Amino acid sequence: MNFPRIAIDAMGGDEGVQVMVAGAALAADRYPQVRFLLVGDQSRIERTLDRHSALRPLVEILHADDVISGEEKPSQALRRARTTSMGMAIHAVKNGSAGAALSAGNTGALMAISKLALRTIPGIDRPALAAIMPTLQPSDVVMLDLGANTECDARNLVQFAIMGAAYARIVNSQPEPRVRLLNIGTEDNKGTEELRDAAALLKERAGDLSMVFDGFTEADKICRGEVDVVVTDGFSGNIALKAIEGTARFVGDLLRRSFSSSLRSKIGFLISRPATDLLKHHLDPNNHNGAVFLGLNGVVVKSHGSANALGVANAVGVTQRLLEENLTERIKADLARLGTETLRAPHKVTAEAGQG
Amino acid sequence: MNFPRIAIDAMGGDEGVQVMVAGAALAADRYPQVRFLLVGDQSRIERTLDRHSALRPLVEILHADDVISGEEKPSQALRRARTTSMGMAIHAVKNGSAGAALSAGNTGALMAISKLALRTIPGIDRPALAAIMPTLQPSDVVMLDLGANTECDARNLVQFAIMGAAYARIVNSQPEPRVRLLNIGTEDNKGTEELRDAAALLKERAGDLSMVFDGFTEADKICRGEVDVVVTDGFSGNIALKAIEGTARFVGDLLRRSFSSSLRSKIGFLISRPATDLLKHHLDPNNHNGAVFLGLNGVVVKSHGSANALGVANAVGVTQRLLEENLTERIKADLARLGTETLRAPHKVTAEAGQG
Repeated sequence: MNFPRIAIDAMGGDEGVQVMVAGAALAADRYPQVRFLLVGDQSRIERTLDRHSALRPLVEILHADDVISGEEKPSQALRRARTTSMGMAIHAVKNGSAGAALSAGNTGALMAISKLALRTIPGIDRPALAAIMPTLQPSDVVMLDLGANTECDARNLVQFAIMGAAYARIVNSQPEPRVRLLNIGTEDNKGTEELRDAAALLKERAGDLSMVFDGFTEADKICRGEVDVVVTDGFSGNIALKAIEGTARFVGDLLRRSFSSSLRSKIGFLISRPATDLLKHHLDPNNHNGAVFLGLNGVVVKSHGSANALGVANAVGVTQRLLEENLTERIKADLARLGTETLRAPHKVTAEAGQG
Repeated sequence: MNFPRIAIDAMGGDEGVQVMVAGAALAADRYPQVRFLLVGDQSRIERTLDRHSALRPLVEILHADDVISGEEKPSQALRRARTTSMGMAIHAVKNGSAGAALSAGNTGALMAISKLALRTIPGIDRPALAAIMPTLQPSDVVMLDLGANTECDARNLVQFAIMGAAYARIVNSQPEPRVRLLNIGTEDNKGTEELRDAAALLKERAGDLSMVFDGFTEADKICRGEVDVVVTDGFSGNIALKAIEGTARFVGDLLRRSFSSSLRSKIGFLISRPATDLLKHHLDPNNHNGAVFLGLNGVVVKSHGSANALGVANAVGVTQRLLEENLTERIKADLARLGTETLRAPHKVTAEAGQG
C-alpha cells in the first residue's frame, strides 16, 4: 500500500507559500515515503517549486483560487470551504485523495471546516486541539484542548482524556498513559463542578480506558513530564499554552539582554555558545510545531502561523506519524471497546460526585 | 502619626518561624519606619529573635496556641480563626492593633478568614488576589484574580478591573492605567459571555473609572508590559500564573543542564556569571513575592509558601507600600466616585452585548 498523501494548505500562515513549500521540501528529505498534495495558487506554487527540484516529483498541485484570511470568522470561512486552499485541503481528506491535511492558517476556520467536512468520530461530541509539550524528561506530554472549545462539560473532558491517551500511546509508546486534569489545586474539592465530575468519571472507568488516571495537576507541573496527558477545557488550555510560550520567549529575551549587558558577559556567551544553542533549540517553538485536531474522521494538523520551514517540516513529521500509526482508527477502537453509551450519564455522575 | 504596624503570621509557610522572622529582620533594615506584630508561638518566636537583635525593639509578640495547616479546608480554618496565628494576625487588623496582615500560610484559609473578619469594601462583591508580574519594561503589570474566585461573572471582573487599576496607580505611578481582560484571542467575539459582557461594561465606563480599557489580551503577552493591569477570573489567573512560574523554573533547569553539558560550557558559564546572575535575579520568584487580597477593609498580603527570607522581606515591602499609599481608602474613593449602583445591572449589559 502506498503511504497516504498529505494535503498542505500552501497559502496559510504568516509567510504563506514560500515557507510551506520549503517546509515540505525539508520534510521530503526526512520522510522519503511521504507524498504531498499542495493546495493553493498554482502559478505561485510552481514558481516556488522551481527552487526545490527534489520535491517536484513528490508533489501534485491542486489549484485553489482563494485563501482564508487570519481575521475571517469561522462562519464566513465555512461558506468558502470549496474555493479556498484550506477548505480544499480538508476536502481532499474527505474524498480520500489525501490521508491528512496540514494548514498554518486561521485555527477557528480550520476547526469549523474540518468538523463539518469530516465529522466527529462516533462517541465524540467535539474535536479537541492537542499538542506535544516539551519536558526535561525523555517522554513528552500531550496537552488538550488548546482552544477549540471555550467551555466544556465533564463528558467532553472525559472524551478528551480518551483521545489524548490514544495520542500519548503513539508519542511515548506507553500502553497505559498517565492522565491528569488541569486544575488550580490537587485536592478533590478544587476547581469547577465540570472538573470534579470528570475526575469522578475517570477514576471510576480508568481501567476500562487503558490509562492511569492520576487526579489533578497544576499549571506549573505541565512541563515536568510527570504525566503523559494533561486534559483541560479549551479556554484554560489556551491560557496555559500561551503563558508557557510567552514566558519562554520572555526568558529568551532576558537571556539575550543579560548576555549583552557587559563585555565579560558577551565573551562568556561566545564561549558557552553550545549551551545557549541547546537552550535555544529546546525553547524554539518550531521544534514543537504541529497541533492535532483529535476526534475527527481524518487527520488534520495545525502548524503555527509564524512557523518557519523547519517548523512546517516538524508539523509534517507529526502528520506522517499519525498516519503511520493510524491514530483515527485507534481512537475509534478505544471508543468501541468502551461502548459509546458509557459516557452518556453526566447527571448521575454529578450526583455521585456531590456525595464524595 | 505612627506608621501602622504589620501583623505577621510567624508560623505560616513551608519554613515557618525561622524564615518569617529572618524576613522581618531584612525588611526592618530596608524600611526603618515599619513596626511588627509577630503572631505565633511566643517561645519559638523569642528564640528566633535572639538571632536578630536589631529587630527585637521593633516587634511585639502576640502569642497564638495554634497553626492552620496547608491542607486545612477554609471552612475548618474559619472555626479556628481566634486561636491560630493566621486568624489572630487578621483579627489584629480588624481591631486596629495592626494596619495590615502578612501570611505565608494556606491561601484558601487566608481568604476565608480575611473576608469574614474584614468584610469587603462597599461595592465589591468578592475580594481578588493580585500580584505584580515581572516584565522587560520599566513598568510592572498587576494581574488579578489569581485564584481567590474560581468562577466570576462580568460584574466581578469589572470590580477586579477597578481594584487592579487602583493598585497599578500605586505601583506604576500611572494616573490612568491601561487595563485588558485576559482572553484566548483579541477579537470582540472571543471567549466566554462573562468576558464579553465585562468588556462591554468597561468600554462604556472606562472614562469614569480613570483607566484606559484596551480590550482583550492573550496569555503570551502578560509579561510584555504593554498594559498595567491584566484582569481575569481566579481559575484562568491561577493557570496563567502557575504556567509562567513553572516555565521560568523549567527554563532555569534547562539552562543549568545546558551549562553543565560540557567543559567548554562550564567555563563559559563562569565567565558569563554576571549575565546568568541577572537572569536568575529576574526569574527568582522571591523577587516578585507578595500577592495582595484587594477589596477588603484592610490590607492582607500573601507571601509564597516556599519564599525565603528575601521573599518575605519583599512581601513586607509590598505591604508597607500599600499602607503608605492608602490602597484601601483609594479603592473606596474610586468606588464612591463611580457610585455603587453603576455595576448592578449585569442583565441589561448582557442584552446589549448580544446586539454588538
